[in-house]
Amino acid sequence: MEGYDPSKYEKLSVAVDLLVFTVEDNRLKLLMIERDEDPFAGILALPGVFVRVNETLDDAAARGIREETGLEGIYFEQLYTFGGVERDPRMRIISVAYMALVPLEQLVFHAGARTSGAWLVDAEELLESEDPVAFDHKEIIRYARWRLANKVEYTGIAFHLVEREFTLPELQRVYEILLGKSLYKANFRKKVAGLIEETEHMTSGDAHRPSRLYRAKEEVVRRRKTEDG
Amino acid sequence: MEGYDPSKYEKLSVAVDLLVFTVEDNRLKLLMIERDEDPFAGILALPGVFVRVNETLDDAAARGIREETGLEGIYFEQLYTFGGVERDPRMRIISVAYMALVPLEQLVFHAGARTSGAWLVDAEELLESEDPVAFDHKEIIRYARWRLANKVEYTGIAFHLVEREFTLPELQRVYEILLGKSLYKANFRKKVAGLIEETEHMTSGDAHRPSRLYRAKEEVVRRRKTEDG
Repeated sequence: MEGYDPSKYEKLSVAVDLLVFTVEDNRLKLLMIERDEDPFAGILALPGVFVRVNETLDDAAARGIREETGLEGIYFEQLYTFGGVERDPRMRIISVAYMALVPLEQLVFHAGARTSGAWLVDAEELLESEDPVAFDHKEIIRYARWRLANKVEYTGIAFHLVEREFTLPELQRVYEILLGKSLYKANFRKKVAGLIEETEHMTSGDAHRPSRLYRAKEEVVRRRKTEDG
Repeated sequence: MEGYDPSKYEKLSVAVDLLVFTVEDNRLKLLMIERDEDPFAGILALPGVFVRVNETLDDAAARGIREETGLEGIYFEQLYTFGGVERDPRMRIISVAYMALVPLEQLVFHAGARTSGAWLVDAEELLESEDPVAFDHKEIIRYARWRLANKVEYTGIAFHLVEREFTLPELQRVYEILLGKSLYKANFRKKVAGLIEETEHMTSGDAHRPSRLYRAKEEVVRRRKTEDG
């Protein structure tokens, strides 16, 4: 920022938009809200918040997640920043998109006074449909879907969609949902062998034979990057 | 952005900061400028521009690259958005960092009227040194360095640092520089086999035996994502 007086430059609105993903009924679902006012009244949109002047982007994302879901401390990461000039008809708004992943069991809806409704939407169906989505949010969702499929190949991101202890079939299902394809059991197990470790626990309480429970190795699920270092 | 009047929210300054990487003398180098005024007068910084209200982020990045290097059409991609509250002592500035990669031969310096100097800085040495870097730019560089090493493993990003046609040893050297480690020739060739194709050309004009020239397959170097779709 050389040779510039920053106060001379026009400022922009900056928002954080949230992609809260979970798995329900073997499908990838996304938390969306129905807008109750124009523009796009009655249309599905990603939840979001404006970034306050004294708040980091990560803090804004955490606040938005808390306001929408009541949850604290769930996994999230910055996805991409969308800055199309006409993405919002009201004014120029830069959107820093964040992705959060949470097992369904933890995703307890929180009654939000400011929204007319929050929904778990099937991400694939939404992307394949012609249904309108507010702003450029369909584009953001499409990018997030692509990134999830990519990241599952080389990171431990899938572990944020299962409980802390899981069976191998449960984990395989999440991998398949994120990748959008079936995996051979042997190939899947080879892929995750270095990422997981056995626990001393077994499943119980249903009609099936008990199965071994596993967990992710600690270094696999550690956060890779926060905006402030 | 539900239930909010965006005009009620305080706006922020948004800048694009640029990491222009090249390889020189078998080292990863980064284009930096020496600041000629406070804050951080005389200290190295990443070049950057403020985002104009009628300009996309990608357009701002392209403009900044053009202003700093005189280059058009080189490869760049959005890296990450840094939004620490106190990252600039003057005011709140959100920085959308972009990474550009260019072979040294194309990186012709362009006399910039607004800078006291532009330098190719050894990225590793800078990160290992205690030398101050303006703002949070050392952190941004550290993140970019990490991301480059990661992306070389699963994308064609390394091809942007070689000429359009290259020998296999040239490409291997760039892979090794980005990864920060030596590779066995056989392992390297296995890694890139699916990404490259032979050309009809051979090197010539020096004392060595002619070597086959290769190029990246077209789909490998195609841009993966632009902010506007």
